[in-house]
Amino acid sequence: MTLLDAVRFNDAGLVPAIAQEAESGRVLMMAWMNAEAINQTIATGFAHYYSRSRRQQWQKGESSGHVQRVRAIHLDCDGDTILLTIDQTGPACHTNRQSCFYRRLEGDGWVTIEEPVA
Amino acid sequence: MTLLDAVRFNDAGLVPAIAQEAESGRVLMMAWMNAEAINQTIATGFAHYYSRSRRQQWQKGESSGHVQRVRAIHLDCDGDTILLTIDQTGPACHTNRQSCFYRRLEGDGWVTIEEPVA
Repeated sequence: MTLLDAVRFNDAGLVPAIAQEAESGRVLMMAWMNAEAINQTIATGFAHYYSRSRRQQWQKGESSGHVQRVRAIHLDCDGDTILLTIDQTGPACHTNRQSCFYRRLEGDGWVTIEEPVA
Repeated sequence: MTLLDAVRFNDAGLVPAIAQEAESGRVLMMAWMNAEAINQTIATGFAHYYSRSRRQQWQKGESSGHVQRVRAIHLDCDGDTILLTIDQTGPACHTNRQSCFYRRLEGDGWVTIEEPVA
């Protein structure tokens, strides 16, 4: 038995991972992990994901410097979703916002609730 | 243009939805929504999801009473993940725990960090 045995990867060998900022409690992003990304996250202490578009594993912030130091890794009841508690360096979103969830539904449309940092 | 145009559903017509408790900031669960679940959530103010195993849309808590009143609906930068800010009645997890993320990685295994309520 290894820790990966408890993880239920989908048919593509991936599992969704939610990144939540430890200090603020804010949900910053959701991305995908394969087994190697999980192993690298554990080995390095920094969040690694799998890019479905680029078809490769990557360390969050490897080019931007906006890395995520991982404080804790949680698994849900049926093993098919991971929750990372992290310390985020810089903005988490590629749009330069702290969180990727910067749009909120109001009435019948989405409004931007957070502007990019300069 | 409708609000659903901004949502990027996967090939199965689904989008992952994270439920975060408004008051505590705790991430309680992740489930899937189809277009109808989103519309029903908006129309009723209570979280609806799509069950991949039962292949039908359902209201969270419709049998258990553990409903989720929705305070806000957020969409991420690329439109493929939803974040619900909710008020949870009772435990969110079918195991009778507040959160589905009740396992935490310690060393090389998962430990239970939250017991079911009586």
